[in-house]
Amino acid sequence: MKAQKYIMATRFQGLPNLSNFKLVEEDLPEIQNGEILCEALFLSVDSYMRPYMDRYPVGSTMIGGQVAKVLHSKNPKYPVGRLIVAYFGWRTHTIINPNDEGDKSFMSTITLLPDLGSLPPSIGLGAIGMPGNTAYFGFLDLCQPKAGEVVVVSGAAGAVGSLVGQIAKIKGCFVIGYAGTDDKVKWLVDELGFDRAYNYKKVDIKDSLKEAAPNGVDCYFDNVGAELSAAVRSHMNEFGRISVCGSISAYNDTQPRLVPCAEPSFVFKQLKMEGFLVHRWLDRFPEGTKQMLKWIQDGQIKIKETFTDGFKQMPQAFIDMLQGANTGKAVVKV
Amino acid sequence: MKAQKYIMATRFQGLPNLSNFKLVEEDLPEIQNGEILCEALFLSVDSYMRPYMDRYPVGSTMIGGQVAKVLHSKNPKYPVGRLIVAYFGWRTHTIINPNDEGDKSFMSTITLLPDLGSLPPSIGLGAIGMPGNTAYFGFLDLCQPKAGEVVVVSGAAGAVGSLVGQIAKIKGCFVIGYAGTDDKVKWLVDELGFDRAYNYKKVDIKDSLKEAAPNGVDCYFDNVGAELSAAVRSHMNEFGRISVCGSISAYNDTQPRLVPCAEPSFVFKQLKMEGFLVHRWLDRFPEGTKQMLKWIQDGQIKIKETFTDGFKQMPQAFIDMLQGANTGKAVVKV
Repeated sequence: MKAQKYIMATRFQGLPNLSNFKLVEEDLPEIQNGEILCEALFLSVDSYMRPYMDRYPVGSTMIGGQVAKVLHSKNPKYPVGRLIVAYFGWRTHTIINPNDEGDKSFMSTITLLPDLGSLPPSIGLGAIGMPGNTAYFGFLDLCQPKAGEVVVVSGAAGAVGSLVGQIAKIKGCFVIGYAGTDDKVKWLVDELGFDRAYNYKKVDIKDSLKEAAPNGVDCYFDNVGAELSAAVRSHMNEFGRISVCGSISAYNDTQPRLVPCAEPSFVFKQLKMEGFLVHRWLDRFPEGTKQMLKWIQDGQIKIKETFTDGFKQMPQAFIDMLQGANTGKAVVKV
Repeated sequence: MKAQKYIMATRFQGLPNLSNFKLVEEDLPEIQNGEILCEALFLSVDSYMRPYMDRYPVGSTMIGGQVAKVLHSKNPKYPVGRLIVAYFGWRTHTIINPNDEGDKSFMSTITLLPDLGSLPPSIGLGAIGMPGNTAYFGFLDLCQPKAGEVVVVSGAAGAVGSLVGQIAKIKGCFVIGYAGTDDKVKWLVDELGFDRAYNYKKVDIKDSLKEAAPNGVDCYFDNVGAELSAAVRSHMNEFGRISVCGSISAYNDTQPRLVPCAEPSFVFKQLKMEGFLVHRWLDRFPEGTKQMLKWIQDGQIKIKETFTDGFKQMPQAFIDMLQGANTGKAVVKV
């Protein structure tokens, strides 16, 4: 059996380009007792991969999650045909012993995909996977939103942001989203029920906040960072909470961007800002996944996926996602 | 009885100067039932006055705390000769009815100074007053320091910072202070027991952090903001906590200073940063005051005051304090 995988052939400088990636073939051995051979059906491209790969040596396999099918099995818990979610990286085929806990990190978890009924298995990479838990815990635990409060979400049409806004609506908040195209803005309001949405490329952020949140912002779920976030921070109410999930605007910067110093607002508005990595809630993932699935099945959360066809398109799908080409979750279908 | 007071005659632009202030005399009436006439003995000059006064109309009396003596009394709880701490502003004499709760804000509280033994009553404006509670709650509640952790304090030789560093030592932390003169740095290490201290005007902040905290910083108590704080933030450990007490470096800025955008560190280090105003703990002030007094009496916390003589010197003392002329608490003695 031959597996294909993508490695980071050269270090990213700014926005990644196709020459940074190299497709490699490798021979897989026969599986041993306890092992399974998995075939990727859907692979995830996510913005976190950009800064994370900076920590890996050149030549490393690109990291990431996939929904895979068990092709061969010598492990009774993982029978042939079973679908799993795992962090094998950008690989078509993988041999693993699920009983081996690896480094016990999030990236070594292997999850059996629950029964999704008529829902597509690819949502194991999105709303009921890592992005779903990111939205659920990162928003609810760190922002502690109350009904009637005003919530701003940046990167609102992305995999996480689109879920955060809908969770905020379920919790009775007034939700304002920022996204990067008019189509996304329309989708947020017309389909997802955001109260207001703006194309951040076309509006003055401060003016839009005055219009949409004349009494200020209570919670800010930040996927973007830099100038947009500085503007939102300056418009927050006393005891406002900021959950920092990502800073996609900065990931491709070669020099840190300069923004107005924020400390005076933090003091006089008594703001709280916390950044997080979702694995801090790893023990509670089943709770998040279960709730997200229920909300989807009840029609309270709508999901959208932007598919790219073909494993060979992984690099391009990744580059496109970093530039905001996706609405909802970006997924590569093998 | 004639009272003297200072008003803000013109709006501050940048660093205040003497022409911003005007000394005004006013006639005080006879006191009525329930009222007391108080005479200021010590008045406080604090950095918070600079940004707070921006919210008051021109012509307002300068705000601030004082230790005052009851000169005349028609209120049995406040007999003649009793010392109190109150927020009458920059006034020599004040008539007040302590039974009137005013706007119930912090600024309308009147506190009977406890028995201090041989300690000077002026510490009611410092270590056992608002700055003491600021240090006690702002550090312990928001930073949640643990023994063995590394704590950085900026504005470390000031009224609040000098207490925070000593509290951190009591809690078993390794304490690094930044101050603005070599004498202050020497005082922090030789007298207060800071583990390391640096003159931020003379060192490269990042180099000094690498030297003093090779394994990173766990807690940062920030009085200063801007570039210094950006450097400390970039040197923090995972789950680091930042308590933002003030941003004195920015108070006289007419335009917000630009600093490197901090979101990537917040995410990947899972940092938490919270700003505060001390009145959020108003209900717990007795706890803070009692503990601070005990630590002082036990010799675990040392206090230092920088005195300026004469009510007429209030503006100059305030301007000097904003430029860091004081070591420990800046107090004007009438």
